[in-house]
Amino acid sequence: MGLEVCKAVDAAPDLDLVALIDHNDTLASAASAGARVLVDFTNPGVVMDNLKWAIDQGIHSVVGTSGFSQERLDQVRGWLVEKPSVGVVIAPNFGIGAVLMMQFAARAARYFESVEIIEQHHPRKLDAPSGTATHTARLIADARKAAGCPPMPDATREEFGGARGADVDGVRVHAVRAAGLVAHQEVLFGTAGETLTIRHDSLDRSSFMPGVLLAIREVVKRPGLTLGLDDLLA
Amino acid sequence: MGLEVCKAVDAAPDLDLVALIDHNDTLASAASAGARVLVDFTNPGVVMDNLKWAIDQGIHSVVGTSGFSQERLDQVRGWLVEKPSVGVVIAPNFGIGAVLMMQFAARAARYFESVEIIEQHHPRKLDAPSGTATHTARLIADARKAAGCPPMPDATREEFGGARGADVDGVRVHAVRAAGLVAHQEVLFGTAGETLTIRHDSLDRSSFMPGVLLAIREVVKRPGLTLGLDDLLA
Amino acid sequence: MGLEVCKAVDAAPDLDLVALIDHNDTLASAASAGARVLVDFTNPGVVMDNLKWAIDQGIHSVVGTSGFSQERLDQVRGWLVEKPSVGVVIAPNFGIGAVLMMQFAARAARYFESVEIIEQHHPRKLDAPSGTATHTARLIADARKAAGCPPMPDATREEFGGARGADVDGVRVHAVRAAGLVAHQEVLFGTAGETLTIRHDSLDRSSFMPGVLLAIREVVKRPGLTLGLDDLLA
Amino acid sequence: MGLEVCKAVDAAPDLDLVALIDHNDTLASAASAGARVLVDFTNPGVVMDNLKWAIDQGIHSVVGTSGFSQERLDQVRGWLVEKPSVGVVIAPNFGIGAVLMMQFAARAARYFESVEIIEQHHPRKLDAPSGTATHTARLIADARKAAGCPPMPDATREEFGGARGADVDGVRVHAVRAAGLVAHQEVLFGTAGETLTIRHDSLDRSSFMPGVLLAIREVVKRPGLTLGLDDLLA
Repeated sequence: MGLEVCKAVDAAPDLDLVALIDHNDTLASAASAGARVLVDFTNPGVVMDNLKWAIDQGIHSVVGTSGFSQERLDQVRGWLVEKPSVGVVIAPNFGIGAVLMMQFAARAARYFESVEIIEQHHPRKLDAPSGTATHTARLIADARKAAGCPPMPDATREEFGGARGADVDGVRVHAVRAAGLVAHQEVLFGTAGETLTIRHDSLDRSSFMPGVLLAIREVVKRPGLTLGLDDLLA
Repeated sequence: MGLEVCKAVDAAPDLDLVALIDHNDTLASAASAGARVLVDFTNPGVVMDNLKWAIDQGIHSVVGTSGFSQERLDQVRGWLVEKPSVGVVIAPNFGIGAVLMMQFAARAARYFESVEIIEQHHPRKLDAPSGTATHTARLIADARKAAGCPPMPDATREEFGGARGADVDGVRVHAVRAAGLVAHQEVLFGTAGETLTIRHDSLDRSSFMPGVLLAIREVVKRPGLTLGLDDLLA
Repeated sequence: MGLEVCKAVDAAPDLDLVALIDHNDTLASAASAGARVLVDFTNPGVVMDNLKWAIDQGIHSVVGTSGFSQERLDQVRGWLVEKPSVGVVIAPNFGIGAVLMMQFAARAARYFESVEIIEQHHPRKLDAPSGTATHTARLIADARKAAGCPPMPDATREEFGGARGADVDGVRVHAVRAAGLVAHQEVLFGTAGETLTIRHDSLDRSSFMPGVLLAIREVVKRPGLTLGLDDLLA
Repeated sequence: MGLEVCKAVDAAPDLDLVALIDHNDTLASAASAGARVLVDFTNPGVVMDNLKWAIDQGIHSVVGTSGFSQERLDQVRGWLVEKPSVGVVIAPNFGIGAVLMMQFAARAARYFESVEIIEQHHPRKLDAPSGTATHTARLIADARKAAGCPPMPDATREEFGGARGADVDGVRVHAVRAAGLVAHQEVLFGTAGETLTIRHDSLDRSSFMPGVLLAIREVVKRPGLTLGLDDLLA
């Protein structure tokens, strides 16, 4: 991911790549190169030290590294109190398409009688349903609950072994696994006489780059901690 | 269904509607009207008598009535021995699209590593998966077995409650239920680098008429008993 | 449409149908029945008189009648000045799915390199592309322009007769016409490595009823003129 | 392609890779290695010499090289007359999914009132519609003509600039170009009340390998010249 980010930044006309830091390099070189934003796709073992250093230096950060517990997030917030002009964006998913899919799904949820999720992935995936599908289902369930939606209609009386999929907070999720697939998700909303389908197809991680670039451009304008891309997608 | 058949026959330039027989009418009127083909969408209680009468009269039959056990089929075959020039077509489904979907699925089955079925129906449906989906899965399983295909790849280790759907003879089947849907089925084949999808959408039973007309045109050329539309779709 | 609205209102637990006014009836019966909201699916020849009457009576209106020019809208606004507590909702399309599709399309527009629209309709349709597709294309074009998006990538050098569809403000729109279709639209967004698709399928006008009910519930809380469902979809 | 073929053959349990011939190598090494089948993905400048040599040696050939005119095919047939036990398979497309899509489309063509093709490709593609889409349209047009199908219903009177796509022998073809796409094609058949859709998605050329392996296995059983994969897909 790191190398792809460097290529994407390098190719963006409004951004300059001033330093490329591998695990053998020190962060100091970023400071001496005049970095305004640090992009961190490292690992949970080193990311907190990197963030502490960047905040101390007054450098903004965009973080795609995983493993941020509530405790870690509170610690970052604490560091930022002392540097009120510094911004940090931490996001579990930089795919703008996936983030928009979830936003749209949450927004449509209250207006339809029924909604189900079909996610489709390559057969090497270990878990079913995917984390994105489960998260989308929960967003939908919350939106329906907040709007006071009744349970969805379903007259199924005879179900053969799991045909109706997994029930995630009342939203059915189906996981398809097949060679030839990469990572896809469809959210199907329906009400009498019409359906609305939101589908996201992800083919490779180059799809994360627009989200990383967006975060780089936005973090300099947003002091404090921003979680996820949602708020950046104006 | 009867009335729709009458309208469809009436509208076909190469066919004549010579009699319309309701439950208050006698079959004799069909004979006196010079019927060459009897179309029977009645019920299991009367269909055998109708068929016996038509075969005796030398009238061909197209039958969409349900409830044909192996025993009943043997009986029809017995009657036809005495009338070798008479044809009978009995089909559980006159939807040409659905029949072609199943044919194509059976034919593609051996060439792909993976295949899964996603069927989607209105939420008033009582069973899941649908009979068509189960039947399609079995045709695919048979074709894969005959070709010596290995099991499909699937690394799933953590599955949450039915997410992977129902296992029908080794083929995963997912049943979606939502308001706004009618009757839909997707068969997804995949192998490294490509997928092939066959999808059938049925909106109303007018879709059965082309199949009924096809059977009427073909039954006069096919003495003996023909089961299903498969053989008629040359 | 009128009859369907009556049925939908009658079936809604929080609404009461107090009068059903056909072209032989007078509006006065609505007032004497204590109507709080008038739903008008009439025709351009009578709708202005109906609206004037309702506003004078202090009755809110939900209007699906077509033919509202800027001049007519200004006239309605003028009438409402004198009755500041009265609300009027006028919408060209009460399909919530279609409205959400357009909102989502406008919102996603700036984040993707490419976007094209494929609309699919029954073959009796006279115009291509559909009004909804053209309107969606314009919303997308406006959003891209406002965000300063560059033109979409397209290396096509040899195009055979219209293969690339119609160019509506720089957005390509493709119109499919086939028996068996009703009214469908797909908006396909793409950027390196991912696509996001928003699809709306409309099968019959029962799909407009949730939008009509929403407007009835909201118009009583929104004095003045509201155009379209957009603002009602919070 | 050559290297991918070598890897695929090497990975197949029933096949042995006995020689890998680059442009610096001589074909003689294939003979001395005991090759039974030569796979040729070279270029039009050398493929005829390769084929002549292989046929002379009694070695079967599977050829994916382009540029086979009718004249060249006749020449290959001439060479094979002298070696009646040798087989040659020449195919423009080794993607089994694409070949099946075209077979199914040709077979379904006569049973539906309407059919249109939507092909979707990356925006670097120079021609529109794609060669595969044009070829599919012609197969469909031929099948409809042979079956005496009437023209498709289409009431379009007002068409805005190319919205209805390109007319290829009476079949409408729509070409979508967007970042994030690779190579996709959808064939949509429709008749009153139902649609049947055949869709092929190709993500990378690894998808050609099953077709190459199939041809290798089949060519040893099929003396003479075989054009395309159609006959091999039993």
